[in-house]
Amino acid sequence: MTSNRLEAFSDGVFAIAITLLVIEIHPPEVAAGASLAVALFDQWPSYAGYVVSFLILGVMWLNHHRIFGLVARVDGALLIFNLNLLLWVVLIPFPTAVAARYLLEGGRNASTAMALYGGVILAAALSFSALYAWVTHDAELLHQAPPPEVVRSSRIRFSFGIAAYTVALGMAWVSAPLALGLHFVMALYYAFDQSTLKVEEGGPGAPDVSNQGPTPLDEHAVR
Amino acid sequence: MTSNRLEAFSDGVFAIAITLLVIEIHPPEVAAGASLAVALFDQWPSYAGYVVSFLILGVMWLNHHRIFGLVARVDGALLIFNLNLLLWVVLIPFPTAVAARYLLEGGRNASTAMALYGGVILAAALSFSALYAWVTHDAELLHQAPPPEVVRSSRIRFSFGIAAYTVALGMAWVSAPLALGLHFVMALYYAFDQSTLKVEEGGPGAPDVSNQGPTPLDEHAVR
Amino acid sequence: MTSNRLEAFSDGVFAIAITLLVIEIHPPEVAAGASLAVALFDQWPSYAGYVVSFLILGVMWLNHHRIFGLVARVDGALLIFNLNLLLWVVLIPFPTAVAARYLLEGGRNASTAMALYGGVILAAALSFSALYAWVTHDAELLHQAPPPEVVRSSRIRFSFGIAAYTVALGMAWVSAPLALGLHFVMALYYAFDQSTLKVEEGGPGAPDVSNQGPTPLDEHAVR
Amino acid sequence: MTSNRLEAFSDGVFAIAITLLVIEIHPPEVAAGASLAVALFDQWPSYAGYVVSFLILGVMWLNHHRIFGLVARVDGALLIFNLNLLLWVVLIPFPTAVAARYLLEGGRNASTAMALYGGVILAAALSFSALYAWVTHDAELLHQAPPPEVVRSSRIRFSFGIAAYTVALGMAWVSAPLALGLHFVMALYYAFDQSTLKVEEGGPGAPDVSNQGPTPLDEHAVR
Repeated sequence: MTSNRLEAFSDGVFAIAITLLVIEIHPPEVAAGASLAVALFDQWPSYAGYVVSFLILGVMWLNHHRIFGLVARVDGALLIFNLNLLLWVVLIPFPTAVAARYLLEGGRNASTAMALYGGVILAAALSFSALYAWVTHDAELLHQAPPPEVVRSSRIRFSFGIAAYTVALGMAWVSAPLALGLHFVMALYYAFDQSTLKVEEGGPGAPDVSNQGPTPLDEHAVR
Repeated sequence: MTSNRLEAFSDGVFAIAITLLVIEIHPPEVAAGASLAVALFDQWPSYAGYVVSFLILGVMWLNHHRIFGLVARVDGALLIFNLNLLLWVVLIPFPTAVAARYLLEGGRNASTAMALYGGVILAAALSFSALYAWVTHDAELLHQAPPPEVVRSSRIRFSFGIAAYTVALGMAWVSAPLALGLHFVMALYYAFDQSTLKVEEGGPGAPDVSNQGPTPLDEHAVR
Repeated sequence: MTSNRLEAFSDGVFAIAITLLVIEIHPPEVAAGASLAVALFDQWPSYAGYVVSFLILGVMWLNHHRIFGLVARVDGALLIFNLNLLLWVVLIPFPTAVAARYLLEGGRNASTAMALYGGVILAAALSFSALYAWVTHDAELLHQAPPPEVVRSSRIRFSFGIAAYTVALGMAWVSAPLALGLHFVMALYYAFDQSTLKVEEGGPGAPDVSNQGPTPLDEHAVR
Repeated sequence: MTSNRLEAFSDGVFAIAITLLVIEIHPPEVAAGASLAVALFDQWPSYAGYVVSFLILGVMWLNHHRIFGLVARVDGALLIFNLNLLLWVVLIPFPTAVAARYLLEGGRNASTAMALYGGVILAAALSFSALYAWVTHDAELLHQAPPPEVVRSSRIRFSFGIAAYTVALGMAWVSAPLALGLHFVMALYYAFDQSTLKVEEGGPGAPDVSNQGPTPLDEHAVR
């Protein structure tokens, strides 16, 4: 098993999962006299869920790609950690659909739906952290170990992310729409954060694997 | 992040989005005595929507591929512009299904459905233009900057396309079937235009990135 | 546009179309007292349609790959011919579902359903022939033109296939299950024929592009 | 046909099949007063089926990749054996949905559903063994034939697996949940077994193609 092959398979799974999000948005059924415009507007939670999950999966794919840019050798445990991550990634369209369906109902069921959503996202984030921890714990798996301060700051970022997702999960019982809003803000933040990330800066919230300029890490990221 | 990897991921998303169009065409349910042939014929908007969206996605993939043939380096903003484009691309099966469902109902709802369709296509076209503007605004991202007149004529093409999509969007309130017809004509036009496009000619309606013969641009498009 | 890139995109579309076939097989709904085994058995047309369409798509992918092994340069017309082929390939899950749904109903509707199926398969076969005719009509598109007798025998094969699919289409009005059976026999025949095909033999029914042993053609098929 | 191309196509099919598993998990519909939490909990067979099938497909993909790491040349029979394997692989979401739907109903239908599930998994395992037997029966297809004792122990592993799947299939008539549990334990076992597999050890249950460290086999697995 080479890193390239595992990454290509994972890329495919990410691409399909992100595209399958659309099949959870159903054309509304309205009676002949009723307004389609109103019905389309009323299912805004479906669109919100689509955008949030799309961003989350997009950012996860990006980070996945960056982490595997470091990997020189795939061992058995990494296969398991990666399979575990993909299991949660592929699942995301399901809680997205549940959240979209029950968000406007309010009360206990809306909270349950958002808790399910937050729980699956949190599980995916934890799986990501576990994968990253494994990859960086053993220098033999890497082309070249990143400097310890980069690994340390990345782990702080991951911990920060997990704390934020836990807050969003808890928010489900306060207000379901607010919880979705928090997920949206976080997804947006991470998407833009990714886009300006520099290894040297070590800003908060995402793995310290830069996509900018020539760095020792990037030499290995280029295939 | 290398250009190749981002392009491979985007290619996957395009391929899946174009294939998912078929799952919005449902086998009709007819009573035992009724005619399946009539029922199949009656859902012609589904087939029309399938063909139009298929062409639109096919042409977009082609242009996407050509633009990325120019790209030497991926920066953070490009990641965001590309993710934004894919967000609209992946969404296309949804308005296609809505348009197919309500086109024959006529009246306000048919207009709403086609306006949704036209709006999503326009959003995708705008996202495309933004991506192209970003790629060509910074020579550092490119293998070799295309000549200024090529960039200028490409932007004119894009502007022309956006104007045309805006007209098609407005047409939804005049006549929904006509609006779909206009989308069809435009998709067909762009598909064939793509197929005969030469950089030197600079005809209307698509990015000036030729797929024909050896040109300075094509040297970079070949990987 | 390079041949490799177009082929990779097409491969992705084939792989997704072949996999989407499964979502047209639905778990049967039976009342608490009724037998699931009987219900599962009763939907055998779904399984038959799945197998037949799977074989057809598999063989088409194989032939597509072989034809593109010959292609050195992609021109605009080839893009259109390929897009047209993919349009029919992606559609196949729809007539498969219609045929599976109405096959056992018998009468006019079963014939209509099988005629739709046969018609789409025939359209795909015609699109394939058009693509092949275009690729082989212009030596400039090829790495090395196949010998004229190979092209000639391939065209005979294609013509034979189109005649056979036309017969299967007509059979829909004689007996729908028989028409499906004929499609099955043909798909099986082509699958095994593919697997034993040699360029030198020029047997009936598939493009003369061998997958066996070192031949002048295969040198180019290897990427 | 090159081994790489066939493998890339197969990888795509595996990635799509594993991702489509999620669309068989439907958001539950609950009345306004009823509890979504209870409804979500009650469909645990869907989650269990998802996890088990995900692991099975993941492990099959892994083994598929390893076997093709050995293959130097693709002949016609290998194409057929591979197409046959993919036919069963792609089908897996269907029995998964049936098993999830009927598991809790108990009685005859639950047994039927689990027997269908076990039968399809067994058919996939048999298809896998046939593919492996073909690949290893002819040294001409391989980069370098694995040592006879490796082939022998691999075949023992496969036979062991087929025996285990047969037991799980039979278990469907004893207790449907127990049969699913047995599938789960086996999938988990194989997943972890894969991850620690060494060619030299020759442990039970999976093809003897290591993913660990530099071995004579791995030289060919690296592309």
